[in-house]
Amino acid sequence: MITKAQAKYIQSLSDKKFRTEMRCFVAEGPKIINEFLEEKSVEPIAVYATEEWGGSPANADLTPVLITKRELENISFLSTPNQVLGVFKLPVPDPSYDFWGKLTLVLDGIQDPGNLGTIIRIADWFGIKAIVASKDSADAYNPKVVQSTMGSLARVQIFSEDLVAFLHNHRPIPILAAALDGISLAKIGRVKEGFLVIGNESKGISTEILELATQKLTIPKIGKAESLNAGVAAGILVSAITIPKG
Amino acid sequence: MITKAQAKYIQSLSDKKFRTEMRCFVAEGPKIINEFLEEKSVEPIAVYATEEWGGSPANADLTPVLITKRELENISFLSTPNQVLGVFKLPVPDPSYDFWGKLTLVLDGIQDPGNLGTIIRIADWFGIKAIVASKDSADAYNPKVVQSTMGSLARVQIFSEDLVAFLHNHRPIPILAAALDGISLAKIGRVKEGFLVIGNESKGISTEILELATQKLTIPKIGKAESLNAGVAAGILVSAITIPKG
Repeated sequence: MITKAQAKYIQSLSDKKFRTEMRCFVAEGPKIINEFLEEKSVEPIAVYATEEWGGSPANADLTPVLITKRELENISFLSTPNQVLGVFKLPVPDPSYDFWGKLTLVLDGIQDPGNLGTIIRIADWFGIKAIVASKDSADAYNPKVVQSTMGSLARVQIFSEDLVAFLHNHRPIPILAAALDGISLAKIGRVKEGFLVIGNESKGISTEILELATQKLTIPKIGKAESLNAGVAAGILVSAITIPKG
Repeated sequence: MITKAQAKYIQSLSDKKFRTEMRCFVAEGPKIINEFLEEKSVEPIAVYATEEWGGSPANADLTPVLITKRELENISFLSTPNQVLGVFKLPVPDPSYDFWGKLTLVLDGIQDPGNLGTIIRIADWFGIKAIVASKDSADAYNPKVVQSTMGSLARVQIFSEDLVAFLHNHRPIPILAAALDGISLAKIGRVKEGFLVIGNESKGISTEILELATQKLTIPKIGKAESLNAGVAAGILVSAITIPKG
């Protein structure tokens, strides 16, 4: 059973303003919910599930609020609701996280929630533990982003920062920027420490960030397409600088 | 001015059955329309535009049907209609296209129109001229795919084939398959001739196609994500086997 007040509260979490105010966000479906409960990096506040849901193998103590399919449809953000919806505490990125000696992704105005989710999965695949996003990037706890990360959000810390100030404060960590006039990614070896900056879908990286770059990197164009999708570009660049060669 | 019959006809083109029957498809927005008119590989049947549209620099002879914004909203498939909508002849892939000596992408059941569009852009960026898609892949002329290719659809031929028969008929062209148990893409050099097979978003490549593979290729996983987006995986693999090294 879910009360009207609970349903209204969950619905309000589609809005970034409310997520920030309430310090929580929504995730849905057995796969993502289980990954979150397993990783323990995000703390569940309440889990609403239909009888279909088998519970979480990682967290047997957790007792979900039993609801009907109809109730789930009412609170779900998905077009096809899937057994379970959880409200979790918004993770606070570790203020003492050490960017030295590590590779970090920096997002300069990534707007599309699907692209942001894809990039979080890329980070998780290649073992990148932190993403620093500009204040005008899409919000990582937007329900669309949460769903498209497929659980990777539990393993990657997301910092929201003023990029210019942030990059200044972390000098001299190398800053690699994806740009059309850089050197070919085939000429770069593995990068174990640095910030890799990915730009906005249509405008690319802003001039002031490009000026801070210590190395511009290019994905050589062999054919004629005007651009690559931002998530694809991020994947190609990250793979080129993280996969052990030969 | 647009008639009710024209509007109904355009609307029907959201449906693959009608596109196949009528042998035409829809593209929208000045950027894509101009790329199509420039490349001349797709033949316009009719172009409907509001007064805002400046016409096509590549095709000054083309006289659009002038319509109002309201009329454009009625026929458009976009949530934000953009000046111009064109109906084009469905391209027929060249039956004598020569797959020997070239790299070709093979899609085994790519379902998501956004992923398909992204993969067509990747092909165009890396100079791949043809994609062979299984019969159960998304249709490349679905309006969502057309829009997400950003014009690249005009430069990449799309073949729809029974993959097993097709690959048999093109032996001994090498068949590279993206799989979890293959060799690292870092161990492969440039591939100038071959079929690179990308699998379905959740099921991967079907067993019968995997059995035909002459080489299994893997994107090494350094972190913990369960999977990468299909478009991102395609981008990483294509970049690794096409970009000149060093």
